[in-house]
Amino acid sequence: MLSKAKIKYIQSLKIKKKRREERAFVAEGPKLVDDLLRNFSCDLLLASREWIIAHPEIRADEIIEVSHEELAKASFQKTPQEVLAVFGQKEYTWDASLPSRALCLALDDIQDPGNLGTIIRLADWFGIEHICCSSNTVDVYNPKTVQASMGGLARVKLYYGSLIEFVSSLSNVPVYGTFLNGENIYQQPLSENGLIIMGNEGNGISHNLEKLVTKRLYIPNFPLGHETSESLNVAVATAIVCAEFRRQVLCL
Amino acid sequence: MLSKAKIKYIQSLKIKKKRREERAFVAEGPKLVDDLLRNFSCDLLLASREWIIAHPEIRADEIIEVSHEELAKASFQKTPQEVLAVFGQKEYTWDASLPSRALCLALDDIQDPGNLGTIIRLADWFGIEHICCSSNTVDVYNPKTVQASMGGLARVKLYYGSLIEFVSSLSNVPVYGTFLNGENIYQQPLSENGLIIMGNEGNGISHNLEKLVTKRLYIPNFPLGHETSESLNVAVATAIVCAEFRRQVLCL
Repeated sequence: MLSKAKIKYIQSLKIKKKRREERAFVAEGPKLVDDLLRNFSCDLLLASREWIIAHPEIRADEIIEVSHEELAKASFQKTPQEVLAVFGQKEYTWDASLPSRALCLALDDIQDPGNLGTIIRLADWFGIEHICCSSNTVDVYNPKTVQASMGGLARVKLYYGSLIEFVSSLSNVPVYGTFLNGENIYQQPLSENGLIIMGNEGNGISHNLEKLVTKRLYIPNFPLGHETSESLNVAVATAIVCAEFRRQVLCL
Repeated sequence: MLSKAKIKYIQSLKIKKKRREERAFVAEGPKLVDDLLRNFSCDLLLASREWIIAHPEIRADEIIEVSHEELAKASFQKTPQEVLAVFGQKEYTWDASLPSRALCLALDDIQDPGNLGTIIRLADWFGIEHICCSSNTVDVYNPKTVQASMGGLARVKLYYGSLIEFVSSLSNVPVYGTFLNGENIYQQPLSENGLIIMGNEGNGISHNLEKLVTKRLYIPNFPLGHETSESLNVAVATAIVCAEFRRQVLCL
């Protein structure tokens, strides 16, 4: 039996401030919850009887069997799916030596939660495990971000803070950024380590941060120079850039 | 002065059925409206005084100067921006010879309006002017699709119908699709013409259509075979595939 207080609590986790206070977030759907259960502690889990029977090994502080109607009341989704879980947030500490050992991403004020989730999902695909985010980047635990990450949250770590500080602390590491007046990415040697900065949806990379970029890249349109939209969606641009970094390694 | 009837009419265009009946759609924001005004007939335009003064050459059946409050009542956006326009829909007729002359996309039941808009925007970037869509693909004139296309609608044509029929009518044209068990895309020669099929968000390319694919592609993850999300977002996958097709032409 799902109490009104529990429904109210879960609904309150739509709000970033409340999520921070409770150090908790919500994820929904069998695939995503399965993925996150392996990596996050679960405070509360609502699920159908069938789901609970199929998962005898589940570890959660509290498990409540719910009807479809009850789940719908707690859910953030239009079509709730079998299971909803409240997980504990994790906070990671950035290590300035990471970009010398691996390819990392930096996100400068990404605003759209779906874009952030999509970037986490593709970072996971391309084996990028570390993403540092400016403090104004949308919250990784926003429900839309969590759902769009498709389990990428289980493997990709996000760090929030001052990107200027993150980037200034690097030494001897290439810092990449994409610009409309950058160099054709296909004609540049791309490294297996370093930091790729992706900018805000409307404004791109902020001026102060741009000064710290050591390799300016450009994704060429086609045919070169034809009239087109002025830019690509930031998740799409991130995908093309990451794919090209990895292609160069795979095809060497 | 904006009448209640006009507000009601604009709001009704959120619904696909109503859009079809009226053969109309809504676009908002100065950049997008500017782009679409060059290619679509404008039935109705609501704008701030400043916008109207700055656009003396505008051609629209009806132009109404509105206050910020009036615009907010008509707008679909959380933060309405200066101008909202109702345009006439266009319908294009598919020509089976198109994929022999140019690279085209086919979308098999894409459901998310944001994904469709993002795909139109990136198709525009990569000079792909023709997208055929299964009848169950989300409506191109959905407001979220229109906004996400960022003006790509002004240059990219979408055709709705039976993809099976579209694809069956092709001859001597490569038909590409992405599959988890396809060939590494970076090791395949990709042509300047042909059709690339992208599948539904949850189910991929439908079984009947899969049989018509002549070149099965795969976007390798990194490092090859590491544990990761099972797939990429469809707009992201489309972007990586289109970028690679164009890279191969640019780098020849």
